[in-house]
Amino acid sequence: MKVTLVSWTPEPERLIAAGAILCYQRISPDDAWEMGKSTKRQQVLLERLVKAGHWSVLEHVVFTFGIEGISRVCSHQLVRHRLGSYSQQSQRYADVGDADYFVKPPSLAELEASEEWNNQPRFDELVAQAVAYYRHVTERTKGTARRREEIYEDARFILPHGGKTNLFWTTNLRNLVQIASLRLCVLSQWEIRQMLLSCKKALMQRFPLLAKLLVI
Amino acid sequence: MKVTLVSWTPEPERLIAAGAILCYQRISPDDAWEMGKSTKRQQVLLERLVKAGHWSVLEHVVFTFGIEGISRVCSHQLVRHRLGSYSQQSQRYADVGDADYFVKPPSLAELEASEEWNNQPRFDELVAQAVAYYRHVTERTKGTARRREEIYEDARFILPHGGKTNLFWTTNLRNLVQIASLRLCVLSQWEIRQMLLSCKKALMQRFPLLAKLLVI
Amino acid sequence: MKVTLVSWTPEPERLIAAGAILCYQRISPDDAWEMGKSTKRQQVLLERLVKAGHWSVLEHVVFTFGIEGISRVCSHQLVRHRLGSYSQQSQRYADVGDADYFVKPPSLAELEASEEWNNQPRFDELVAQAVAYYRHVTERTKGTARRREEIYEDARFILPHGGKTNLFWTTNLRNLVQIASLRLCVLSQWEIRQMLLSCKKALMQRFPLLAKLLVI
Amino acid sequence: MKVTLVSWTPEPERLIAAGAILCYQRISPDDAWEMGKSTKRQQVLLERLVKAGHWSVLEHVVFTFGIEGISRVCSHQLVRHRLGSYSQQSQRYADVGDADYFVKPPSLAELEASEEWNNQPRFDELVAQAVAYYRHVTERTKGTARRREEIYEDARFILPHGGKTNLFWTTNLRNLVQIASLRLCVLSQWEIRQMLLSCKKALMQRFPLLAKLLVI
Repeated sequence: MKVTLVSWTPEPERLIAAGAILCYQRISPDDAWEMGKSTKRQQVLLERLVKAGHWSVLEHVVFTFGIEGISRVCSHQLVRHRLGSYSQQSQRYADVGDADYFVKPPSLAELEASEEWNNQPRFDELVAQAVAYYRHVTERTKGTARRREEIYEDARFILPHGGKTNLFWTTNLRNLVQIASLRLCVLSQWEIRQMLLSCKKALMQRFPLLAKLLVI
Repeated sequence: MKVTLVSWTPEPERLIAAGAILCYQRISPDDAWEMGKSTKRQQVLLERLVKAGHWSVLEHVVFTFGIEGISRVCSHQLVRHRLGSYSQQSQRYADVGDADYFVKPPSLAELEASEEWNNQPRFDELVAQAVAYYRHVTERTKGTARRREEIYEDARFILPHGGKTNLFWTTNLRNLVQIASLRLCVLSQWEIRQMLLSCKKALMQRFPLLAKLLVI
Repeated sequence: MKVTLVSWTPEPERLIAAGAILCYQRISPDDAWEMGKSTKRQQVLLERLVKAGHWSVLEHVVFTFGIEGISRVCSHQLVRHRLGSYSQQSQRYADVGDADYFVKPPSLAELEASEEWNNQPRFDELVAQAVAYYRHVTERTKGTARRREEIYEDARFILPHGGKTNLFWTTNLRNLVQIASLRLCVLSQWEIRQMLLSCKKALMQRFPLLAKLLVI
Repeated sequence: MKVTLVSWTPEPERLIAAGAILCYQRISPDDAWEMGKSTKRQQVLLERLVKAGHWSVLEHVVFTFGIEGISRVCSHQLVRHRLGSYSQQSQRYADVGDADYFVKPPSLAELEASEEWNNQPRFDELVAQAVAYYRHVTERTKGTARRREEIYEDARFILPHGGKTNLFWTTNLRNLVQIASLRLCVLSQWEIRQMLLSCKKALMQRFPLLAKLLVI
């Protein structure tokens, strides 16, 4: 898994400060934006907004993460958060049939390494067989009347859920804080937790004041 | 696949008519609701709203569909429509490991039946192996310190995307019309198209006037 | 102000129970709906969902309120809640120019009754003048080339914010609980608080179990 | 009215191109972002997305407008678009009682200038009286036990709808295109049309390729 902060609202703390100022004073947007420059004021106002539960101001700030190599188990959970924007690698248009392109949970590797596993087929073998099936199907139907996406979309029914995916995820800060409060919890799935931790780490490098709102 | 209309706004055409009346006249909600009774007026107003693009009034009407036995390929596409509400069978809490619980696309059955398939392993065999792996993992970890949902959530990485799922889907009429316009298109995936057709059929039995808004 | 519960999801507690059952078990939607019948189970499951923070199941239940005679000060605050559906009496298509059609806050009446008010013009007088202006404008432009809605929409610039409005408001239960937690607070505007209290009262008559989720 | 483009997604055309590339190819987000650099590719891909109706990719691009001096008639219409984020000058916390702070529609000025207006009170006179009332109320209650926002929120019931407001509006490009298609129409209210035209003009200076999607 690799998480990159690809795009962000420039000077996000300033925009939040300006939004807060505009709400509570009779001031023009341009002047509020000017006043929002002060780092000291940014800190004070952010704290005040959070304390007052005035979260909507945080919506003006938006981040785009590039997410590479999470399983579709994980992405399925992510996209259930309905307030963000997702551009995800299609399994109708992209060929996803090779055996390296799967996430294997550590607990399964551990289990397979134990004595009692015996001769049961292993994760990697099953994946390889599924991929071979996928390859066979997609190659057999090339050159027929079926559209490429129809072929891929049916072939993928055999691929395990552990298959990897890539996506761009755009979310505003309010939404991100809310999702982090759910997904950084120890009760959530290990992979999405790790993903959110990586998002937080990426934020921390540029915007520590904001990253701290993502509470573990 | 089985689609049932489980719940709906009572007298939906009347509520739409009442909403339209309230927007354009100085009238109380109670009186608008009373005036909305007339079937004739319902027809006229619905047509007028659609023609004017005044879709928001259709949001007051909400349907809940029970959807049984679609693949997770299909459900993954459905839940990308962000304006509805979904309660989907969890793969963290429910045991989904048996070989009958998979959708096999007709095109794959057809392909396997052709002469050139030869000795390649078939869809059902691969599914059976994946299920056996799933069974082995879940049984081996019972009685350990790991929580039930942690075991299931990792074991399912091996299960093919064709695995079935059940869900309740609640959507308002405006959103349903919009989704139908996308998913009843011949370019969309065969299974979600079939699902939307079943939704339309279920609606048609009770609310033909509204079902007709779902255009193929 | 008058608030009526105009429409609602039938058997809402049952739908919530069915949704909860479907999430956590391998069961068909039809069977979950059947199992949801038990009142005992409904209580237990609702409590469990709330405790677990599994609010999304409550989204399947939807209420439509008819709201009559709130000020546009109040409606302006209501419509800022973005997850509901609103059909509000238009000020472009409906004639809203008469002096009875205004909300006068009790604090203003009290103030005007005090000795020091002296000869200052009163709320009702100013409203009457604004309405007279509105009447004059709308009558003067009848019969001209301007569309009716253009006339009304400009004339209303003179009308005070206290002017009344009517609307249908459709919201799901999750959203309603969230809004109530904000607007039933003593810090919120008196009129929207009163409105939410009336919504709660209307719910209480039919669905006491659900109404109790709206905490003052 | 003054509209400023205060904040925007940097290199928005590139982010859109990268999103499109990621959807249709097996490529990492970082590489997609790299490939998105080419201006030629940006043009081709944007055109293709629009033609295919693949609007969701445009959601990654977000703009914040500072809007100064529109009437609350206009802002009331704007905030009904539920997919954006708004931070609007509060009438509970800010003192908005002075006579310069009102929008007077040109049609009313014209009407008042006509011969037949006679001795009817004019817009400005009525506004001045309302403001005097507001001033009297707010000054009379200073120093009492009532909170500042309670005083302001009641006093404003007398202020005409033409009163000005300021706000920050953040919207993604998909939503902006959709709103423009509704509000740049000649049938919409003159002020919100003018506002959207100003938004388009501000966009045109920096991002002409994107601004052209806002069709009059």
